[in-house]
Amino acid sequence: MKTWREECGVFAIWNNPEASRLTYLGLYALQHRGQESAGIVSLNDGTHLHHKGQGLVADVFTETDLDRLKGFAAVGHNRYSTTGENLLTNAQPLTAQLKDGPVAVAHNGNIVNAGELRERLKKEGAIFQGSNDTECLLHLLARHNGVDFMAGLQASVKNLVGAFSFCILTHDKLIAIRDPYGFRPLVMGRIGNSVVFASETCAFDLIGATFVREIEPGEMFWIDKNGEHSVKYADKKISEHARCIFEYVYFSRPDSVVFNHSVYEVRKQMGRWLARETKVDADIVIPVPDSGVPASIGYAAESGIPLELGIIRNHYVGRTFIEPRSAIRSFGVKVKLNPQSAVLAGKRVVVIDDSIVRGTTSRKIIGLIRQAGAKEIHLRIAAPPTVGPCYYGVDTPTRGELIASHMSVPEIQKFVEADSLSYLSLEGLYHAVGESQGFCSACFDNKYPTPLFGAD
Amino acid sequence: MKTWREECGVFAIWNNPEASRLTYLGLYALQHRGQESAGIVSLNDGTHLHHKGQGLVADVFTETDLDRLKGFAAVGHNRYSTTGENLLTNAQPLTAQLKDGPVAVAHNGNIVNAGELRERLKKEGAIFQGSNDTECLLHLLARHNGVDFMAGLQASVKNLVGAFSFCILTHDKLIAIRDPYGFRPLVMGRIGNSVVFASETCAFDLIGATFVREIEPGEMFWIDKNGEHSVKYADKKISEHARCIFEYVYFSRPDSVVFNHSVYEVRKQMGRWLARETKVDADIVIPVPDSGVPASIGYAAESGIPLELGIIRNHYVGRTFIEPRSAIRSFGVKVKLNPQSAVLAGKRVVVIDDSIVRGTTSRKIIGLIRQAGAKEIHLRIAAPPTVGPCYYGVDTPTRGELIASHMSVPEIQKFVEADSLSYLSLEGLYHAVGESQGFCSACFDNKYPTPLFGAD
Amino acid sequence: MKTWREECGVFAIWNNPEASRLTYLGLYALQHRGQESAGIVSLNDGTHLHHKGQGLVADVFTETDLDRLKGFAAVGHNRYSTTGENLLTNAQPLTAQLKDGPVAVAHNGNIVNAGELRERLKKEGAIFQGSNDTECLLHLLARHNGVDFMAGLQASVKNLVGAFSFCILTHDKLIAIRDPYGFRPLVMGRIGNSVVFASETCAFDLIGATFVREIEPGEMFWIDKNGEHSVKYADKKISEHARCIFEYVYFSRPDSVVFNHSVYEVRKQMGRWLARETKVDADIVIPVPDSGVPASIGYAAESGIPLELGIIRNHYVGRTFIEPRSAIRSFGVKVKLNPQSAVLAGKRVVVIDDSIVRGTTSRKIIGLIRQAGAKEIHLRIAAPPTVGPCYYGVDTPTRGELIASHMSVPEIQKFVEADSLSYLSLEGLYHAVGESQGFCSACFDNKYPTPLFGAD
Amino acid sequence: MKTWREECGVFAIWNNPEASRLTYLGLYALQHRGQESAGIVSLNDGTHLHHKGQGLVADVFTETDLDRLKGFAAVGHNRYSTTGENLLTNAQPLTAQLKDGPVAVAHNGNIVNAGELRERLKKEGAIFQGSNDTECLLHLLARHNGVDFMAGLQASVKNLVGAFSFCILTHDKLIAIRDPYGFRPLVMGRIGNSVVFASETCAFDLIGATFVREIEPGEMFWIDKNGEHSVKYADKKISEHARCIFEYVYFSRPDSVVFNHSVYEVRKQMGRWLARETKVDADIVIPVPDSGVPASIGYAAESGIPLELGIIRNHYVGRTFIEPRSAIRSFGVKVKLNPQSAVLAGKRVVVIDDSIVRGTTSRKIIGLIRQAGAKEIHLRIAAPPTVGPCYYGVDTPTRGELIASHMSVPEIQKFVEADSLSYLSLEGLYHAVGESQGFCSACFDNKYPTPLFGAD
Repeated sequence: MKTWREECGVFAIWNNPEASRLTYLGLYALQHRGQESAGIVSLNDGTHLHHKGQGLVADVFTETDLDRLKGFAAVGHNRYSTTGENLLTNAQPLTAQLKDGPVAVAHNGNIVNAGELRERLKKEGAIFQGSNDTECLLHLLARHNGVDFMAGLQASVKNLVGAFSFCILTHDKLIAIRDPYGFRPLVMGRIGNSVVFASETCAFDLIGATFVREIEPGEMFWIDKNGEHSVKYADKKISEHARCIFEYVYFSRPDSVVFNHSVYEVRKQMGRWLARETKVDADIVIPVPDSGVPASIGYAAESGIPLELGIIRNHYVGRTFIEPRSAIRSFGVKVKLNPQSAVLAGKRVVVIDDSIVRGTTSRKIIGLIRQAGAKEIHLRIAAPPTVGPCYYGVDTPTRGELIASHMSVPEIQKFVEADSLSYLSLEGLYHAVGESQGFCSACFDNKYPTPLFGAD
Repeated sequence: MKTWREECGVFAIWNNPEASRLTYLGLYALQHRGQESAGIVSLNDGTHLHHKGQGLVADVFTETDLDRLKGFAAVGHNRYSTTGENLLTNAQPLTAQLKDGPVAVAHNGNIVNAGELRERLKKEGAIFQGSNDTECLLHLLARHNGVDFMAGLQASVKNLVGAFSFCILTHDKLIAIRDPYGFRPLVMGRIGNSVVFASETCAFDLIGATFVREIEPGEMFWIDKNGEHSVKYADKKISEHARCIFEYVYFSRPDSVVFNHSVYEVRKQMGRWLARETKVDADIVIPVPDSGVPASIGYAAESGIPLELGIIRNHYVGRTFIEPRSAIRSFGVKVKLNPQSAVLAGKRVVVIDDSIVRGTTSRKIIGLIRQAGAKEIHLRIAAPPTVGPCYYGVDTPTRGELIASHMSVPEIQKFVEADSLSYLSLEGLYHAVGESQGFCSACFDNKYPTPLFGAD
Repeated sequence: MKTWREECGVFAIWNNPEASRLTYLGLYALQHRGQESAGIVSLNDGTHLHHKGQGLVADVFTETDLDRLKGFAAVGHNRYSTTGENLLTNAQPLTAQLKDGPVAVAHNGNIVNAGELRERLKKEGAIFQGSNDTECLLHLLARHNGVDFMAGLQASVKNLVGAFSFCILTHDKLIAIRDPYGFRPLVMGRIGNSVVFASETCAFDLIGATFVREIEPGEMFWIDKNGEHSVKYADKKISEHARCIFEYVYFSRPDSVVFNHSVYEVRKQMGRWLARETKVDADIVIPVPDSGVPASIGYAAESGIPLELGIIRNHYVGRTFIEPRSAIRSFGVKVKLNPQSAVLAGKRVVVIDDSIVRGTTSRKIIGLIRQAGAKEIHLRIAAPPTVGPCYYGVDTPTRGELIASHMSVPEIQKFVEADSLSYLSLEGLYHAVGESQGFCSACFDNKYPTPLFGAD
Repeated sequence: MKTWREECGVFAIWNNPEASRLTYLGLYALQHRGQESAGIVSLNDGTHLHHKGQGLVADVFTETDLDRLKGFAAVGHNRYSTTGENLLTNAQPLTAQLKDGPVAVAHNGNIVNAGELRERLKKEGAIFQGSNDTECLLHLLARHNGVDFMAGLQASVKNLVGAFSFCILTHDKLIAIRDPYGFRPLVMGRIGNSVVFASETCAFDLIGATFVREIEPGEMFWIDKNGEHSVKYADKKISEHARCIFEYVYFSRPDSVVFNHSVYEVRKQMGRWLARETKVDADIVIPVPDSGVPASIGYAAESGIPLELGIIRNHYVGRTFIEPRSAIRSFGVKVKLNPQSAVLAGKRVVVIDDSIVRGTTSRKIIGLIRQAGAKEIHLRIAAPPTVGPCYYGVDTPTRGELIASHMSVPEIQKFVEADSLSYLSLEGLYHAVGESQGFCSACFDNKYPTPLFGAD
């Protein structure tokens, strides 16, 4: 069930006559990572052209907009909403005029020491347009005088603590940077003679590009008229990497390859491990659509209990919806999900979901399933309990709002009114991924890989 | 794969203070039956209030619109597009001022003798606003003077040949009519003291209404201040009924109960019968999402071949989309569907779809699956070949455009470039439904239950 | 001061490759006659294409719309709002499919026996789409079978009582009709080989057409492939004509020639006669802009008192406006009109307006002028007191709302708080026009030229 | 005739519960100074809320927007368009986060040394968001550390050369600044206990505020919790002031008091002096509406030649307009202005306009007047020939585009095809204003009061 606010998607391309159109398509494929605003900056004869707007990619850009965004290179960004205030000021790619010329930055992640950096920079005379953490990078960059741009950029990035996968377009080069922990994904591909970067490989699939490799944690990769260059500006051991394990649980599209594993396959394995760990006697396995489907397939296959689509999702649900005035039981959930009694009546049902956030939605879903006639309802979550908020680029609820941060599993079971409730263990999750280290699972174990600068 | 233009959805309610809001919700749940225009007429103190517009229900109506549509009864309609010209003139519910007062008609179906009726009525002095077949009913009705309204309506309806499930709102009653063949579904339900009618039961689920029964073929049911009334204005034997079997194949939402069977269960059975009839040695079964999913579950269960989501659907696809200028292979399909090589590479794959229309989309899908590395591709269609167009309310291509009308199955297999191709037999389809008579399957067998008045 | 709701504007053209574009321009020039909806129907290869919408002409039509409206003939209409309900249903040109083919009607005026006709037609089986009086003509027309179209049209028109200037487009001809009284203007012009009709000559000026003559009261003029034809279907003596004298007072654009007189010149003469009849000792003459300007020029010239722009109109006033919450004195008027103390302070001021409707606006204007420092304020109205509502196509307030219907001139003077108040006499108005008969001045003298069918 | 691109309008208010609504109204009244974008920033509990958008004030702000802009102080801005690119980035008020908190700047004018300042600031590490000259002030401000905010502001402003009337809102004060030359107007008023600033007094009229005085050239005035303060940060003799004389000729609304004179009265005097200097024997005087009307009144009064509205302006002209494909003579002008032959035919006509820019529009107007039958056409311009572009906040054509920069008056007369042409002398203009020094008339005499930093 969709309950998490998503993060961001970035895309960039170098050396293509359709740079802005392919960036549009890349953002389109990455729409699931951010639906509130979108923007593209193209590079045309050494100057930048840009267009940003609120809403879905398909709504923000018209044919005319894309025609105006001429040039052989472009960088684009999808973003989730911040508060209503300042929406467009914070929209990305962020752009600025520096002494070396125009710079455009698309950022996926969150810089945890941004507050400190802002205070320091303001004292030094910097003025901030928005409330965005990304703006710090531009100010740091502007302060490196008398050195080569790439040297200044490298020095600037070293000041940043936190999660960042950057695509940066200047007047003469395109740069991709991943933070030393590698929190967020960033991949490189090729299409003809063009180089492309994206948050996920599904963007490459749409435009027919070939996946080449990940940008490594701590790597700075750039392309200019002299070719392709790579620098490891920060080295960490694999065990110090902190790739976001939640990308597998919820964020990434199932058809992407993230951190070198197929998201769909990992999710199916999560279902299999969930079945191994939390087996129950039941008649059918049903997913909470759509995010619970791959894990359900794995659970059904492992447990031998047949898979059914016991809940049908309404795909015509729009962004706005007029509510009835009268109380219709669990109306908000019903608009999206319809449990069908033809499938559920009289059955012992295993319900597979990806996570429980506040517990209220899960309670409503359980209620609707029971109302549809299910005899027993066994809720199975294909991930461990989420106990900690994310400070690395995901707009999670506060710790206090996360039900698992202050309730035990039996308490949650009572709250959501399921007949039984089990979560996948953290070990099970690592088994499903097939690696045992190099991930951030702070949302499950409260082990934050970086200092938090008072954020919590 | 979505390839058929849909028909229409109707909803009506009597005796509810939130009549127009619940109609809005009903139309929302029926959005899959028509996405081009929507309209609601409410009855307030003997007069009609209405609002119609182009687009999705959620876009057509604002809170203000619904507030204006006061009253205790309402009728609503979702419609697919006709040609660009006259769009709003043809939008439904159709409204008119007759001598007895205002009449509003919402119609699902198509009247095959409309052309003849229009010519006759024009000669008698009728003026037509639009090109809509439904307008004939209003003119017939207006010509019955000196008789009671319901008698006039009954006499008028007897002139109509074809498919019609009507919801009609006057100044003092709400009427539901189904044609003698029962082509299109129409169900009755209750919520509190209110009576509701809808094309499908999924509309009842959303508003929390209870399904009571179908309006019978040839039945005229109405509610007024004196209570509920029913007349069988035309009698046919069960074997003469002509319920649209394609409602199971494609149109209806899987979570609806249509013609007294769960659509989801029928589709799953179609998959089981397909497996029985067309078994093949393979590694995985994959649906073409979303319409092929229930049949795939049935196929996988019956065949023992594991189900996989080998093709991921992008649910953010908007109504408009800017194409790249360069040729990207099968781009149009790729925007919606992404076959993933992580699942498909090296596999022998059974692909389940609901139908093949022109064959071009199927060919593209097969191509993308092969490009993703599948070793063998066995296309299985969970319905018989579609050889005839529909004249009963579905916007099908012409006969000549239907690939199965002029190509044999082996020829189609070559065209779509599958390694094998099989369809479900018509008998298999009837087995899946669980009834052996009373359906129109003209699109599969060219046996049209009514004269076509030169339409073909 | 703009206080009257306007009526409608019609435009039509025959034999021009840019028929719909020139119709667009004609409607643009006639925008002052109706701002709530606009529509164009073009004739292309015997069929009609149409586009209607709510709002100003420039907002209703896009380049794409006009490109779609192909053909060598077109008819267009500007309309004022009726109630919110049914807006688009009543938008004109009204269109229908009759036995002879498509018919489109643009109507300026109001048929006073429409209620009776509707009841009779409904009893005969007619169905009405909207609440519009124009629809009667279509139904009457549809009932004339077995006769030639033009004979049927002539017979139909004879049933209508009231005001009508029609432009009618069929599949093969364009027809212009004016009612026997000649209430509303309708003029013919030429541009190249094309014939054009319009409500006012200002539409001809914009497209560069030459004014030829008025369509006469009781005349039916049409063009088809055989040429131009005219029939006098009803004869009245000049003294029985009832041309709307209020067209000079308020409705028509000053740069139009209406009923063969320049509107601007008549208005200036109204100012001159007003000065002769109501002279007062004063320092300056100021118009209430913009409608009072021509009369002020005449008044100043005749009286020798200098003209000043004592009130400045804000031309950026939009259709919507957000009011302050706090009470700002006479705010509603102030948004549009700003009396300037630099001109008014210490002066004895003659204020010229075209009419007083309810009196409340005049009171506010007088108040603002006094607040700006005027020593004496002499309100002069360049028309007689409006005592009767219009039933011939103008959306006037009811009789009870017209202040002059129930207050004497001294009472009105007190109400509006002017130091003196005088109106132009009816004789003065006729002098200004320069004709002594053949006008309807019912709004000034309650002498309605036709039976009112219980309307009052 | 409207031919000049306008500049900007500013408005600000302190200590009013309806701060943002009154700012909206103030901007509404100042709409003539800029129609391309509008913005408001309010101060609420020490933080800033803002909303900006493209278009007219009435289109940019909804009721909801204004409700969100809470607080007791606000600053607003109307702006003309820059290039299509970066429109919103350059929209004002400009906002930034400095070390002291949020700052919002609304600027009317143009800083001529902005290019130099930007280069210097970039070298010092400043990053620029837009291409706006106003951004320099923010960067200068941010660089003043360790001093009091007002001291830093004063020091910053001293770096600026050119025209600036600023309204600046911080977290605790509202500041109004006028450049030492006083190029652009800026006035202070009071409404209840609130202080208001505006570009012109017409904004005070609308909200019912009382005009108090001008902010003086070189004055910095501010309000905070300690009351009102004023500093003369730069002193110039009256003779060194450079108030824009073109405000009287074209920019300001006639009902404003600018630089302590009524604009309307000055314009009327310009007409009187024009008559004295350029008398001609003629039958009528006609203005080019609307800007030529006050001068025409003066000209007619002085010359004794009667005033007529020989050209009628169409006030329904929208922002967009679809052109005919065929060539209609002088179509572009005709859409706005219709010369009427009823007034002009056979007459010797004096035509009064405010200026001639490129000459092409004047030629079209003269052509239309002649086509309407005028016997002689004497064009009189109520200002001297415009020979120099403006670098102080007006978007004028380049010098080369100004017809008077490269043609003599007789040559212009031939070009525009008038029978005679005369301009008001610069002395006449000063006589009309009633002052003989302290103005910038560089557009008439090329005497620029400041260095231009290579701009010309």
